[in-house]
Amino acid sequence: MKAIAVEREGDRPVVVERERPTLTAGEALVRTLRVGVDGTDHDVIAGTHGSPPGGADHFVLGHEAVGVVEEAGETRFSPGDVVVPTVRRPPGESNEYFERGEPDMAPSGTYHERGILGEHGFMAEYFTSPEEFLVRIPDSIADVGFLVEPLSVAEKAIDLAYASRSSFDWAPESALVLGNGGLGLLTLALLDDAYDYDRLYCLGRRDRPDPTIDIIEDLGATYVDSRETPVDAVAAEHEPMDLVFEATGYAKHAFETIEALAPNGVGALLGVPEPWEFEVDGGRLHRELVLQNKALVGSVNSNVRHFAAAAEALPSLPAEFLDVLVTGVYDLDDFEAAFEDDDTTIKTAVQFSSYEERR
Amino acid sequence: MKAIAVEREGDRPVVVERERPTLTAGEALVRTLRVGVDGTDHDVIAGTHGSPPGGADHFVLGHEAVGVVEEAGETRFSPGDVVVPTVRRPPGESNEYFERGEPDMAPSGTYHERGILGEHGFMAEYFTSPEEFLVRIPDSIADVGFLVEPLSVAEKAIDLAYASRSSFDWAPESALVLGNGGLGLLTLALLDDAYDYDRLYCLGRRDRPDPTIDIIEDLGATYVDSRETPVDAVAAEHEPMDLVFEATGYAKHAFETIEALAPNGVGALLGVPEPWEFEVDGGRLHRELVLQNKALVGSVNSNVRHFAAAAEALPSLPAEFLDVLVTGVYDLDDFEAAFEDDDTTIKTAVQFSSYEERR
Repeated sequence: MKAIAVEREGDRPVVVERERPTLTAGEALVRTLRVGVDGTDHDVIAGTHGSPPGGADHFVLGHEAVGVVEEAGETRFSPGDVVVPTVRRPPGESNEYFERGEPDMAPSGTYHERGILGEHGFMAEYFTSPEEFLVRIPDSIADVGFLVEPLSVAEKAIDLAYASRSSFDWAPESALVLGNGGLGLLTLALLDDAYDYDRLYCLGRRDRPDPTIDIIEDLGATYVDSRETPVDAVAAEHEPMDLVFEATGYAKHAFETIEALAPNGVGALLGVPEPWEFEVDGGRLHRELVLQNKALVGSVNSNVRHFAAAAEALPSLPAEFLDVLVTGVYDLDDFEAAFEDDDTTIKTAVQFSSYEERR
Repeated sequence: MKAIAVEREGDRPVVVERERPTLTAGEALVRTLRVGVDGTDHDVIAGTHGSPPGGADHFVLGHEAVGVVEEAGETRFSPGDVVVPTVRRPPGESNEYFERGEPDMAPSGTYHERGILGEHGFMAEYFTSPEEFLVRIPDSIADVGFLVEPLSVAEKAIDLAYASRSSFDWAPESALVLGNGGLGLLTLALLDDAYDYDRLYCLGRRDRPDPTIDIIEDLGATYVDSRETPVDAVAAEHEPMDLVFEATGYAKHAFETIEALAPNGVGALLGVPEPWEFEVDGGRLHRELVLQNKALVGSVNSNVRHFAAAAEALPSLPAEFLDVLVTGVYDLDDFEAAFEDDDTTIKTAVQFSSYEERR
């Protein structure tokens, strides 16, 4: 079967030929429909994030997959079920985090991540997975099922953020998403649709006309140009935010978030920046966190529960939003286009097979 | 009646003569037993924190009080009840935070604080208070009832910290308290007694022999000398901490806390530093928060619920701990001693009347 991988010393994805995987006990064989591409894939290709399985001469990419169960083995699934795989896997031996269904909370070194860290990804015509790492989704969203993984990452971060405010009466009205990439825009749509925000904002650094600004405004949100209004000026220019969702990976944003927050607000941090030293007014930030009961929560990955929440939320996101969010789905013979990244690209995917095919 | 106040332009507490307050509807008149002294009082005296009621020529100090109901008015209390007052009061008009019993979550500008901000404190022979701001405590802890307020501040911060970890399975085993002042040591005892920590640490900067180090070690905790082991070296030198409780007001600690935390750990910040610019490796801290699901929660003040929790926890703290924690209780004619602060001082209070008196 064909797979998309980056070869050892390679710096771009290529198609490789691999053996179609065979089932072992507790696994299902999944025919891959589509696999999304995100910033992490670009980092994996560039070699700045993650690492291939030990000894592999190539590394199959992809962690945002959707597929159809081809062989259900002895799992709870049936052939034809549309499923999305989670990303983390035990690194050999299982551990307490996997055993209680919370591998997203596993510390560094106690997990692999398919397509990112130590285990091949889903960009292949077929993949197998233990059933506990597969989440069934409605057939009706098979085409956009590759958005369940990024949406689950947003669900988890929002879950942590809300938990952090659960010991008192908190009724957030305003939220700011930092970053107008695929994850940022998906989160904005999720906050608009599934949460009860009166006012939403999304920060980017794009000139009009721009498709992401159009999406932001079509969702009824306010576009904030970070070149005109830095994060620490948002509270004064617009309003203090009850929730800030950081999806830029720009380290200064993590600290400026404290100043963007309203009293009792929370910042969910999701970016993974490189080391970078800079000056902060640490006294003011510390004082502000304390005197206004603010919080920062870091969040990474997601578990089956968040995938299920995402699969429930996705069908109610506006179809016109998803249409413009997904700027390209490319077949295997044109897969390179899915990895191109310019100002017209928002979310892309590679299609390995069609949902209708062989039904 | 006599009260302890700082006069306008004054820089030290003095005894002033004031009218004994009279009851208004919904209030109780309380005969003051003891009022504790803490760092905030020193800041108020120095004029670096808070401000007196508008137009006042003196400012009655004190926010850590315990007293006995002298006249119950039409409240739920009876004469003789031992009570502790909360600190925040509506600034004239009430608001939603007071109405739902969470004035501790009120944003700056929407509250007064007795003895700190805009309203006279409790260092007087009598004070009145609306009944909703009084918490009854067991008679048996009348002598140490002035510790309920600082303990309630710890309870609230721990409450927020635990809430932030409530969306997943979290079983903390190790905790580090930053600061060996009264609040730090009270929190250490609380974590030891009411929470199930296997290993406790407390950071200070004192040479042996030192009474606070003795207290730390008598509680079975490990003393960490910050001059030898800075906060960001604690994880390597000792172990990563599931909970860090910051009670130093030293702004660098807020950021170093991120590196002291174990994966999925939370830092509760309580200090109120002045502005101070310094360099941080913001990229590394941001990355660490995200990849290890860490959180920082700021916490200020406390509400009736936390006072009730503190009143429940205080009687089970070891008597020998409380004996050495309270280094001095001084009568009105020797009150200056309660405001002295050297390496032998941990927690002091002024006594206005004795619990036994006039019973």
